[in-house]
Amino acid sequence: MQRVKAIVSYDGTLFSGWQKQPNKRTVQTELEKALRSIHKGEDVRVTASGRTDASVHAIAQTVHFDTPLAIPEDKWPKAINSKLPDDVQVKRAVYAHADFHARFDAVEKEYHYRVLTSRTKDIFRRNYVFFYPYPIDVKKMKEAAAYLKGTHNFSSFCASGTDVVDMVRTIYRAEIMEKNDELHFIFRGNGFLYNMVRIMVGTLLEVGKGRREAEDMSAIIAAKKRSAAGKTAPGHGLYLWEVCYEEDKKQRHQV
Amino acid sequence: MQRVKAIVSYDGTLFSGWQKQPNKRTVQTELEKALRSIHKGEDVRVTASGRTDASVHAIAQTVHFDTPLAIPEDKWPKAINSKLPDDVQVKRAVYAHADFHARFDAVEKEYHYRVLTSRTKDIFRRNYVFFYPYPIDVKKMKEAAAYLKGTHNFSSFCASGTDVVDMVRTIYRAEIMEKNDELHFIFRGNGFLYNMVRIMVGTLLEVGKGRREAEDMSAIIAAKKRSAAGKTAPGHGLYLWEVCYEEDKKQRHQV
Repeated sequence: MQRVKAIVSYDGTLFSGWQKQPNKRTVQTELEKALRSIHKGEDVRVTASGRTDASVHAIAQTVHFDTPLAIPEDKWPKAINSKLPDDVQVKRAVYAHADFHARFDAVEKEYHYRVLTSRTKDIFRRNYVFFYPYPIDVKKMKEAAAYLKGTHNFSSFCASGTDVVDMVRTIYRAEIMEKNDELHFIFRGNGFLYNMVRIMVGTLLEVGKGRREAEDMSAIIAAKKRSAAGKTAPGHGLYLWEVCYEEDKKQRHQV
Repeated sequence: MQRVKAIVSYDGTLFSGWQKQPNKRTVQTELEKALRSIHKGEDVRVTASGRTDASVHAIAQTVHFDTPLAIPEDKWPKAINSKLPDDVQVKRAVYAHADFHARFDAVEKEYHYRVLTSRTKDIFRRNYVFFYPYPIDVKKMKEAAAYLKGTHNFSSFCASGTDVVDMVRTIYRAEIMEKNDELHFIFRGNGFLYNMVRIMVGTLLEVGKGRREAEDMSAIIAAKKRSAAGKTAPGHGLYLWEVCYEEDKKQRHQV
């Protein structure tokens, strides 16, 4: 058996998220179906770096699975893609150490969130950006975003009902870029709680709208309760952008 | 009764084209349903500048309809949009002369066609560009496109089975622009035959691929038969970009 590490991209629009669920169209289900077909009907379990919710997209989700097949690394994407529907795609695949784990070994993740701030909506981007046609103060939002950087207990930015005990995460990047008629939020950290990016975006948009002040972010973080933060921004503006492993960081330092 | 001229945008992905058909989801059906709802159940017939096929998009289709309602011009888009699904949208509306006709009065139309020329496909653009991952000679394609400009009998670029008798059209613009990993074809003319843009694009791509020479375009036009030209490019790369009327041309000259 060899362990394959693969980078997968998907358009979340028509998926009920990553995780397998009965009678739902999910990314995991489609990938496992494709692999089962390649493995002559044998079940192949695919493990991702983490779940994504319904309508959330992935530019680069990382997964792993085990295979007895001796397919060369660079042939794996084409082999799997030929069995996949056209809204999910394997971008790259490599053979990893036998103990590589897509979820437990992830050391950094980056999410992007796209907001359309024009006054009129764009039907062609309806599934890809959060349409927010209000006058907003981007400078204040950038100030507010800066408060999220660093190591904090992010309980205020975690959807209730999760069973995670340790709510402390470190955020390395919390930036907002203006790109034509869109705002792109970029968050990079050592991990993210459930709905954390979407609650951060929702809260920052409320700052932009003038309903909160940038300085309020300290108190929101300190409150350690979900009700202190803003609304959860919708899933369809969110992109899992990159998952980084120890080996990737080493390579980066070598370059 | 007053005649309304409206500019409509739609994402063709989930439509069986413009024209009403039994048991099919079409743009005309959705617009007429929205207007019927605004008109308390009365049927309102919507006429477009022309049909578009399944999966073809419109940035600005022009339509007209008659109404007894005294809604101010600038309130019409919001009124109709509130009843429309999220993949079709009225962008603007004005009251026109009682004899304005969206189809018969159109004097110029512009179509764009997007081709993705990267080696790997992009799942996020799967419904919006024609994926053509082959080495192509864009310079030769531009040379070939120039042959299409002017007044010609375009029988070779018309899908068979149409009942149009006069196949002569004048093309004012036939350009190819390189935009990152895409080619954007721009065609502007006084009218287009059935599938004409898609056959022109398909033929130009064959020139790009080296299967035809740019100079062959003269003979293809002269042949006046569909079999002389290349394949029909798929509908999902095509955009109805603008429909121009005499009044628009006058306004343009005034500016």
